[in-house]
Amino acid sequence: MDAKTVKVRVPGTSANLGPGFDTLGIACSCYNDLELTLLREEGLEIEIHGEGAENIPRTSRNIVWRSIQKVLRRVGCADEFKGARIVMDNKVPLSRGLGSSATAIVGGIKAANEALGNPLKNRDLLKIATDIEGHPDNVAPAIFGGMTISTVRNGWPETFRFIPKIRFKMVVVVPDFFLPTKAAREVLPEKVDRADAIVNIGSTAMMIAAFIKGSRHFLRNAFDDALHQPYRAELIPGMYDVFKAARKEGALGAFLSGAGPCLMALASGNERSVAEAMQRAFKENNVESTYMILDIDKEGARLIE
Amino acid sequence: MDAKTVKVRVPGTSANLGPGFDTLGIACSCYNDLELTLLREEGLEIEIHGEGAENIPRTSRNIVWRSIQKVLRRVGCADEFKGARIVMDNKVPLSRGLGSSATAIVGGIKAANEALGNPLKNRDLLKIATDIEGHPDNVAPAIFGGMTISTVRNGWPETFRFIPKIRFKMVVVVPDFFLPTKAAREVLPEKVDRADAIVNIGSTAMMIAAFIKGSRHFLRNAFDDALHQPYRAELIPGMYDVFKAARKEGALGAFLSGAGPCLMALASGNERSVAEAMQRAFKENNVESTYMILDIDKEGARLIE
Repeated sequence: MDAKTVKVRVPGTSANLGPGFDTLGIACSCYNDLELTLLREEGLEIEIHGEGAENIPRTSRNIVWRSIQKVLRRVGCADEFKGARIVMDNKVPLSRGLGSSATAIVGGIKAANEALGNPLKNRDLLKIATDIEGHPDNVAPAIFGGMTISTVRNGWPETFRFIPKIRFKMVVVVPDFFLPTKAAREVLPEKVDRADAIVNIGSTAMMIAAFIKGSRHFLRNAFDDALHQPYRAELIPGMYDVFKAARKEGALGAFLSGAGPCLMALASGNERSVAEAMQRAFKENNVESTYMILDIDKEGARLIE
Repeated sequence: MDAKTVKVRVPGTSANLGPGFDTLGIACSCYNDLELTLLREEGLEIEIHGEGAENIPRTSRNIVWRSIQKVLRRVGCADEFKGARIVMDNKVPLSRGLGSSATAIVGGIKAANEALGNPLKNRDLLKIATDIEGHPDNVAPAIFGGMTISTVRNGWPETFRFIPKIRFKMVVVVPDFFLPTKAAREVLPEKVDRADAIVNIGSTAMMIAAFIKGSRHFLRNAFDDALHQPYRAELIPGMYDVFKAARKEGALGAFLSGAGPCLMALASGNERSVAEAMQRAFKENNVESTYMILDIDKEGARLIE
């Protein structure tokens, strides 16, 4: 099998969307590009531009390389290709709740699969990526694009992917601090009120129905969450004020992006004013921030050039 | 305002559908008919045929009459109409998990509203019925028909109603014992594992997407529930054996109907063999049962004749 240089593009993603804890995800028009050349000889050459250029390891610990190796082993090519040249061009901010690690994992496996002539199907990539990441909610939209519902049963991930029938842009407000997913996980209790679980079941069902059918009206209460945001609020000063500001400015809904600290609002036509209102609310809580206005990415991970 | 005799038909309903605890509902082609004549003079005349003819009270405690009174008070006609003649013809079995109380409530308010010339809209009926029943998951499909997603926020119910794009019939296996909802509620813990809540969020989201889009394949794991059926299993001997028998016979899914004890399977083309397999599994657990094969009711509560 002869390997060539391939270049792939992978979208950043936002998980949870409020109530859909560990289940819902959406792909965003903010990308990491990855160029891969598999080498027969041992050795790793990693070049990083953009986000993470200072912090991402260039050794064999690099998550992209480890993901590539999983594919090589899976298809029985680990002995054939022992090294790689990798060039990363990253736009997805690190540790902010936009799925940067999922993007790296999916980038690695997608590029390796393309370089080897696509021996694996997307569902295999989903399984490998979920095994590496530990859960499918970010890797699924990174692979398939669009909006995704993901579950895991006995270690097997399953993803339903669709394009919402409601038009919106994503307003992502990025506060000027990092929040490691681990820290954001630690504040969550293992036991929750049954009544709170019911809130999230109802909101998630309503949200899925509204997005698939295009019934904007039913989004009104569909972002209510009782399972993770109330606990994470202490880690993100002013979180609920920012949500309130977004809603008041006419956003369809607002929520924590993944485990945070990015906050996201869905808006249609009034993105800039929603973004600025959110920034003001953060500022009143002494948090500086920047913002991005993103579209839904419909394609997911793909070959470019 | 002059009242006339009206006759309404209200479908029985099944709540939860497995994971959609206190949220999902479906209307079934098994009906209670209700004839109402509002009377200016005081006095209650209640005639009951069919299910519950022996147990349902014929006094002012009667739930149909109490529901009628709510409507009379709401539209300011309580002084004008002080009595009623009510004829009930019931096919929905009592206390088996097919929403008989919701059917009675919706029958009362729908008939009263019709008799008064429809001063109230369906959304008002939903609010009144939810206030009486305490939750919307059965009254919503009884009013609107089809499959329903219901939530409550600050006491206000909201229902999204749709017709599934997957064809099926409902196999309802009725064991020969009653199970009061109160008893079936008492076995549920107030606190649940967060991981269990996530199972139900994922299953419910997958189920809604599969039914709305017509993607039968995605129903495979969509009936998984970790929040109520595992606790209620002790009240229904052989419950999981019956579910297993239904799946083995090719059912799309099987679950406890509401708080039970009826068990329901969705099947397409093989309803009788699914029903018989379920009965056999019950029998092996020393439970006698009968079964019904029902269609989804698409209309909900309506005027007849």
